[in-house]
Amino acid sequence: MLALTMGDPAGVGPEITLWAWHALRRSGPSFVLLADPDWIASIAHGVATIRPVASIAEARAVFHEALPVMAVSAPLGSTPVPGHPDPGNAGAITASIADAVRLAMAGDVDGVVTNPIAKAVLKQAGFPYPGHTEYLAALTDASGREVMMLAGPSLRVVPVTIHVSLREAIERLSTDEIVRVSLTTVASLSRDFGIARPRLAVAGLNPHAGEDGHMGAEDIDIIRPAIERLRGQGIDVVGPMPPDTMFTAPARARYDVAVCMYHDQALIPLKTLDMAQGVNVTLGLDLVRTSPDHGTAFDIAGQGVADPASLIAALRLAGSIAEHRKTA
Amino acid sequence: MLALTMGDPAGVGPEITLWAWHALRRSGPSFVLLADPDWIASIAHGVATIRPVASIAEARAVFHEALPVMAVSAPLGSTPVPGHPDPGNAGAITASIADAVRLAMAGDVDGVVTNPIAKAVLKQAGFPYPGHTEYLAALTDASGREVMMLAGPSLRVVPVTIHVSLREAIERLSTDEIVRVSLTTVASLSRDFGIARPRLAVAGLNPHAGEDGHMGAEDIDIIRPAIERLRGQGIDVVGPMPPDTMFTAPARARYDVAVCMYHDQALIPLKTLDMAQGVNVTLGLDLVRTSPDHGTAFDIAGQGVADPASLIAALRLAGSIAEHRKTA
Repeated sequence: MLALTMGDPAGVGPEITLWAWHALRRSGPSFVLLADPDWIASIAHGVATIRPVASIAEARAVFHEALPVMAVSAPLGSTPVPGHPDPGNAGAITASIADAVRLAMAGDVDGVVTNPIAKAVLKQAGFPYPGHTEYLAALTDASGREVMMLAGPSLRVVPVTIHVSLREAIERLSTDEIVRVSLTTVASLSRDFGIARPRLAVAGLNPHAGEDGHMGAEDIDIIRPAIERLRGQGIDVVGPMPPDTMFTAPARARYDVAVCMYHDQALIPLKTLDMAQGVNVTLGLDLVRTSPDHGTAFDIAGQGVADPASLIAALRLAGSIAEHRKTA
Repeated sequence: MLALTMGDPAGVGPEITLWAWHALRRSGPSFVLLADPDWIASIAHGVATIRPVASIAEARAVFHEALPVMAVSAPLGSTPVPGHPDPGNAGAITASIADAVRLAMAGDVDGVVTNPIAKAVLKQAGFPYPGHTEYLAALTDASGREVMMLAGPSLRVVPVTIHVSLREAIERLSTDEIVRVSLTTVASLSRDFGIARPRLAVAGLNPHAGEDGHMGAEDIDIIRPAIERLRGQGIDVVGPMPPDTMFTAPARARYDVAVCMYHDQALIPLKTLDMAQGVNVTLGLDLVRTSPDHGTAFDIAGQGVADPASLIAALRLAGSIAEHRKTA
């Protein structure tokens, strides 16, 4: 049993949640949505059966015949209108996340899956975190330990730097951080994905990985020492790899995860290959957490055209990680 | 009729040339190889028939039954050994390029296709250019006008900065250069590719194209003004696009070329999608020039395992561009 947050109710979260329940209600993994049951019921008529529940046991019992919805500890400020986010709903949005984390930390659910939120909307309401990942780390006393992985059918990537400008990504790059992110990744692939001895490919920063220092020094000065330290700890690791050729099919066959130096080095190949089915996984936390690899998509919300594939993949992956942890 | 340079004779150039002749000898486009006829004959026995030729007319006449080879104006320094490049052969390698350019500028051939060279080897021999593109620009008095395009079956990309460190790519980025590269690209797509009104998508520099300036200012300060100037000239252009989502199939369907801010932003999606069939096209020169989108691959040279697909695609594209120019 997983907890699924409501996300921004003006985005595509509500509709993809209904489709995801349809897709998974027989096969599982089962999940409980943390949202306003009346509001969800009002948008679900004819599409899905909604069942307000007061406990996880109840949610488990009804999942195959109805989408179980548990009320959030803070109410909606206004009735959500698709495509028109309201900062007045920020309290309910973040409470849904906090409630899910509480359920997971208490062991009532096996993991948390988060629907998309809009940073700008939450920021207006005073939410101080850049995104889900940092908020979850804070809620679980794991700040600074979190690592973001994007996992698709063709590729797994872990960016060492994330939501900063490209210039700042270069400034922030450090041997210590590459090692930290890589070790967290290795531990998670082994524990959560059942890969006994994960194979890492570490990307270079510069074109052709700097071509022996002719195009930038970071590949030699910062990245290579990280690879040597990892190798010294017995990790199966190659690199720094020329970034442009490391995501071809033959290259991908030789590693389990690509450790990338900046956001787009990781996200361009992931989304180019696996747009519809990429899943965002937070590593380094005590709880299992995944999310779809897309945003609120306010521009198409409420039209029934949003693709639930990434949310379905996120629920499946959270279920699979939880299983691996149970049998470990 | 095209001129094909020898490239580094210790790389995969010779073998992929033989296979390319096999693939194209009936369909065309026809080409003449600029290399040492005796040396090529010595490696081709049983695989291809070699015909030393003294003129383009002769080359055209024999192409369907033999690979025409025209002697280079500078001799090989030593007999090439696959996988073991010799700087002593740099004179012949660069003379082959210069000879091809002369034939093209004289109108004897319709375009130049270059086999891979190794910058490091040529540099040891005193060659002052970073690569083919700059050398070709110098030979044709077009230095500073050259633009590199990578074209595959799924995607065309034009990087605004190329073989510099990522840090320097950011420093060098300018509105003027984005406009220059874009205008050259539009002119070429229209003249050389038969696209009457090319649609450009200009990438942002930062994650999510900076998210309204929250992650870097370049997208607003440098890239947006370039797009406005291009639009002011009647160009069909969108951007700055979030780099990670602009290379998915639905996004690619909406443009003819992606103008990218740095090497790997362009090359990662191109090679991930079209590794085997990417072609490097030099725009902005008076002559038609393409090349395979891979290097000398010394590690597999002489083993018969190199894939000639990119060279074949480069020859076909050069032929197609030449046709478009003739009928323009």
